[in-house]
Amino acid sequence: MGTANQKTIQQIQSENSDFFRIAFSVDCVIFGFHKNELNVLLLKSDLEEFKDKWSLLGDLVRTDENLDDAPYRILQERTGLKDVFLEQVSTFGDIDRHPAGRVITTVYYSLINVKDHLLRLQHHELSWFPVTKMPQLAFDHYKILQTCIKKLQDKIDKEPVVFNLLPEKFSLRELQNLYEAILDTKLDRRNFRKKLFLMDWLEDAKEMEQDVPHRPGKLYHYRASTTKPATAQTLVQ
Amino acid sequence: MGTANQKTIQQIQSENSDFFRIAFSVDCVIFGFHKNELNVLLLKSDLEEFKDKWSLLGDLVRTDENLDDAPYRILQERTGLKDVFLEQVSTFGDIDRHPAGRVITTVYYSLINVKDHLLRLQHHELSWFPVTKMPQLAFDHYKILQTCIKKLQDKIDKEPVVFNLLPEKFSLRELQNLYEAILDTKLDRRNFRKKLFLMDWLEDAKEMEQDVPHRPGKLYHYRASTTKPATAQTLVQ
Repeated sequence: MGTANQKTIQQIQSENSDFFRIAFSVDCVIFGFHKNELNVLLLKSDLEEFKDKWSLLGDLVRTDENLDDAPYRILQERTGLKDVFLEQVSTFGDIDRHPAGRVITTVYYSLINVKDHLLRLQHHELSWFPVTKMPQLAFDHYKILQTCIKKLQDKIDKEPVVFNLLPEKFSLRELQNLYEAILDTKLDRRNFRKKLFLMDWLEDAKEMEQDVPHRPGKLYHYRASTTKPATAQTLVQ
Repeated sequence: MGTANQKTIQQIQSENSDFFRIAFSVDCVIFGFHKNELNVLLLKSDLEEFKDKWSLLGDLVRTDENLDDAPYRILQERTGLKDVFLEQVSTFGDIDRHPAGRVITTVYYSLINVKDHLLRLQHHELSWFPVTKMPQLAFDHYKILQTCIKKLQDKIDKEPVVFNLLPEKFSLRELQNLYEAILDTKLDRRNFRKKLFLMDWLEDAKEMEQDVPHRPGKLYHYRASTTKPATAQTLVQ
């Protein structure tokens, strides 16, 4: 499989001749947390020129489609995912970024709970890759991925977005593992917990972990009612 | 004047017929600080359909031009401004945002020191407007402006970007006035100064204000060597 669906740049150009003055696409960087690693969902490239390379999930924006609606459509078409966390990150438009012509792309990142969604991916040429073990990526997708990782790293410090990556109930150990995976660094346990509780994001689920190879920890869930993501201390707040 | 240069949508469409499948533009939100108010630089719209409305400075992206180079070219062509602080904010692509067809626009904001640049604007149909007293804006430029103000408000809390809006030497009073103008709120003087010095952004210029109608304050300049913009206290740092 694979080669039957591959297209040459000439095919892409002729199929999209109306688009390729400047064409406009959307790419999605979909993050998941799996086996204590930050993962990204990639697709085998269907361009002959990028045989054996992988790419982000993307598509051209339809002429009758609002830009910010496109990533939701693409995610649903390619993965069945609906109602996911999605946010626009940046737009990439270097002249030579696409071999078929001038294609400018707006990038969105998404955070999903892998456990809920693993099964649906069986029938696609889709695969999760840990960000520390990336295969060769097509286009400028490596640069795009790095930009999104940086954005995520900045964000988790100030806003409660990581909970999109976890099951409903989780232990503090899992949460710290997730922060460490995203930041690619070890955090001091006591300090992390102290600052975490200052954020007022967590609520005791009144349950303990089960079937774990270590002393069971308390489970928490995200306190959705927190009104203010608030940096604990900032210049003007 | 004005009407001689005005174009109809039909003219724009025929002049740009190759572009208008999806056309791609850049818009610049240029902020300045003048008479204790946050100002935005606007241009009289040259579209007949938007007669008497104002718009952000923008242009179509050239096919041989990297996206991130376009705002620098546009600023220089329209205002003579070079070497300014510019940052990409977001891309706007609702289907109906431009009456001439599908135009997606990437928005950049810029912070400049008005005093250095006031004179050059005399010969253009450009004008500064306080953000609290906006004229009618063309297209979705009001929404774009609000997004950029929000971005600026978030940013000044964490990164030393406001110094782009000030002369080289400034008093703490001026700095607080600037923060208050951007945030559209009054700040507690003592608290503001306490947090400000924690940021380690300022260096004593060893001079005092002159010709001011109040007790002269000390002057400071921005300590460019500060390596870390750092939120004073965050979850993981």
